[in-house]
Amino acid sequence: MLLYESLAAQLREQIAAGVLRAGERLPSIRRLALAHGVSAATAVQACLQLEREGLALARPRSGYFVRAQPPAPLSPVPRRRVPRTVSNPALHEVIDMLSRRDLLPLHAAVPAPELLPGTALAAALARALRRNRTQALDYAPAQGHPPLRRLIAQRYAQLATAVSPDEVVITAGAMEAITLALRSIAAPGDVVLVETPTYHGILQAVAALRLKVVELPHRPGGGLDLARLDAVLQDAPVRAAVLVPNFHNPLGSVASDADKQALLARCARHGTVVIEDDVYGELAWSGQRPAPLRHFDCHGLVITCGSFSKTLAPGLRTGWLLGGEWTDALVRAKYHSTVGSPALPQLALADYLQRHDQERHLRRLRRALADNARRLRAGIERHWPQATRCSDPSGGLSLWLQLPPGGDGTALFEAALAEGIGISPGQLFSSRGDYRDHLRLSCGLPWDEHLERALRRLGQLAAAQVA
Amino acid sequence: MLLYESLAAQLREQIAAGVLRAGERLPSIRRLALAHGVSAATAVQACLQLEREGLALARPRSGYFVRAQPPAPLSPVPRRRVPRTVSNPALHEVIDMLSRRDLLPLHAAVPAPELLPGTALAAALARALRRNRTQALDYAPAQGHPPLRRLIAQRYAQLATAVSPDEVVITAGAMEAITLALRSIAAPGDVVLVETPTYHGILQAVAALRLKVVELPHRPGGGLDLARLDAVLQDAPVRAAVLVPNFHNPLGSVASDADKQALLARCARHGTVVIEDDVYGELAWSGQRPAPLRHFDCHGLVITCGSFSKTLAPGLRTGWLLGGEWTDALVRAKYHSTVGSPALPQLALADYLQRHDQERHLRRLRRALADNARRLRAGIERHWPQATRCSDPSGGLSLWLQLPPGGDGTALFEAALAEGIGISPGQLFSSRGDYRDHLRLSCGLPWDEHLERALRRLGQLAAAQVA
Repeated sequence: MLLYESLAAQLREQIAAGVLRAGERLPSIRRLALAHGVSAATAVQACLQLEREGLALARPRSGYFVRAQPPAPLSPVPRRRVPRTVSNPALHEVIDMLSRRDLLPLHAAVPAPELLPGTALAAALARALRRNRTQALDYAPAQGHPPLRRLIAQRYAQLATAVSPDEVVITAGAMEAITLALRSIAAPGDVVLVETPTYHGILQAVAALRLKVVELPHRPGGGLDLARLDAVLQDAPVRAAVLVPNFHNPLGSVASDADKQALLARCARHGTVVIEDDVYGELAWSGQRPAPLRHFDCHGLVITCGSFSKTLAPGLRTGWLLGGEWTDALVRAKYHSTVGSPALPQLALADYLQRHDQERHLRRLRRALADNARRLRAGIERHWPQATRCSDPSGGLSLWLQLPPGGDGTALFEAALAEGIGISPGQLFSSRGDYRDHLRLSCGLPWDEHLERALRRLGQLAAAQVA
Repeated sequence: MLLYESLAAQLREQIAAGVLRAGERLPSIRRLALAHGVSAATAVQACLQLEREGLALARPRSGYFVRAQPPAPLSPVPRRRVPRTVSNPALHEVIDMLSRRDLLPLHAAVPAPELLPGTALAAALARALRRNRTQALDYAPAQGHPPLRRLIAQRYAQLATAVSPDEVVITAGAMEAITLALRSIAAPGDVVLVETPTYHGILQAVAALRLKVVELPHRPGGGLDLARLDAVLQDAPVRAAVLVPNFHNPLGSVASDADKQALLARCARHGTVVIEDDVYGELAWSGQRPAPLRHFDCHGLVITCGSFSKTLAPGLRTGWLLGGEWTDALVRAKYHSTVGSPALPQLALADYLQRHDQERHLRRLRRALADNARRLRAGIERHWPQATRCSDPSGGLSLWLQLPPGGDGTALFEAALAEGIGISPGQLFSSRGDYRDHLRLSCGLPWDEHLERALRRLGQLAAAQVA
């Protein structure tokens, strides 16, 4: 192949791959020559070749542009192989779904944007840019912006839970908080206890760190099964337990204060560190916020993970750790994970929290979620097969459903996806492929006709399975 | 202790710890009673007690407030123990220093804010908030905002390097990119090759993942020592090599095209994956950008890590991976690391890159850095002990200095810190405590009197060591 042909082929490939789009300028002759190590004459020849093929268009004194409607490439374009190899078949789709705007997002355990204070947050972000531009664009401390850390400690003080701002570490949401905590505490091969079912992000983080996992089921009536916990802790050393004590995802259950204390007493006896994911704690529909495990932690064995994702804005990716005596190790782990969280969201959140009555916003949000859940449950009763079972939570963002015999949550997930409806298949919430007949629905969406239609359609799809 | 005394003690502790500050309101009586599980009468008693002690002040119909100038607490306040246990003594301070505004930041390998397009970026952020508020505050795709991924692929196309937008993964800067790549490729106990000296973030990430490290020195003249590389690769399986081929941090060296090709041929033969940290590639002071390793990668064994931190804004924490056939594994790792990067910076960067001539900004930035480095080197020649050796790079952000016999970079670091000057001690750049007589200075700071004075003072401190 002549030099100019090889260069033309590369440009052709970039156009076919969408790297260069219709209307965009090709690199200048000088640039092409320099970057590809060819003469200017060769670069010109390559561009002329593309012009002959109808892919590029010369504009006087501006250079070459990609044609508005390029014809199909003459030969198949070689592409870099990017295979998809995912163990849990639904996982890849679930990761992709998180930001798809063409789905009815019953899969996303997050409040709909209209339930969140977007206007006030956008104003706080704009204010931070105007007032502290340099700080907003520069590195923030690895541990996080001190005023935000203090405001988080203050919120715990309101819950009668003593937290020092010195032990608050800002993270990219609770997901990074859990990952950092596990990385700082457990070594590959260590045993980690999780609930079953549980949030798939926890299962993935545990698997990625090559930790061994023991799954603890809840009692039939809800709450931790302390007898099973005893058996597990006595059986082998358990380095850490990753638990969602308040409005569990997906079960929706809350551990009682007595259960929380009993749990901590047992973990203290066996030297098991407790990583608590408390992202739903603020979402008690009654307004009675259940205490975090940290509230009862007299042995210093709890690391609490929290987030603004479920109450203010998921896209700001701002959460936190209460690190206790692991704070320093957690800050170092944060450093070589992401150096530090972006400065701008931290400045804006501190500003927002100081200006606005958080309690008033939460009151409205909780009421809306309770209302959504009530209507969802009623819709399921109306439209789904009669023997469908549905959780009856008192807070959080999840309804956990079990289909009647014959029902298949993963098949329902695929069928729903094909019709533009997102749900979370039950299998996601197990490391062993359990809960195939379960699924999770989000109660973050305000009720409307569109949602009602989708719920009815889901009911029809489920009915077809179990018929 | 009576109930009200215990509640008063907790509030006293919050005031002493700064969780509640002068002028701030205490939680209401109703809130206190609810959160602490006491009667309203008990909560009132506790507040009255604080008032008697002069810590709180009642305001009619508003509740209790923290007194403007609280007296010292009567008894020592018990605090949660937060020990600092860092292996490399300088590391903790270096992490803390990153965002300190009271230091002359010769330690930070990042351009000074005035060299970066802060105004245009702030405008792009504000625009994204105005035009796409909902999207800006919601989850972005785990892999990243597609338009930004395409623009990154386009930039590589300009460098004659074929990259598909499908394999670009947005990360929290290059640090997360390196960590994700290592996590996706190597298992604990695997051997990873790094250069020596090298960026301490790489060393920390490797250590945190429990990987074994082999250090490869550069040739005396600069560039990779290929003979040593051969010996290492033949000795034992090396899973991955983490290299900084362009304007190495801290050495400043660039591998030649021939060296890059020779390196890749050897790694291909031994099945070693190459993770390239190319964050300085755009900062060739001459304007001649050296090719990334990826440019020469015909075996698909290179994962490239890039970032906007060194060219646009470190605080946006936005970088990327070119994942090739590991893309899918990297996206999953990204998900359980941070779910996804924040949406707002990605929207804004895509907007900024489409509106502004990146090449013009880079031209100005490169010229400024070259000028800073020239003046820094001249200042070192003028003010430092005569036998001090200094690197002579042609790009990047680092000068690497070796003190004459008797010089101690770590002691100089401590002495400089005490005088408000930040430098990076050489020891940071080794996993074995080497380079004790070295240090790194950033050339990101425009020359001014303040900098000249600091450089002179550093020279005096160094001279005192070697005298």
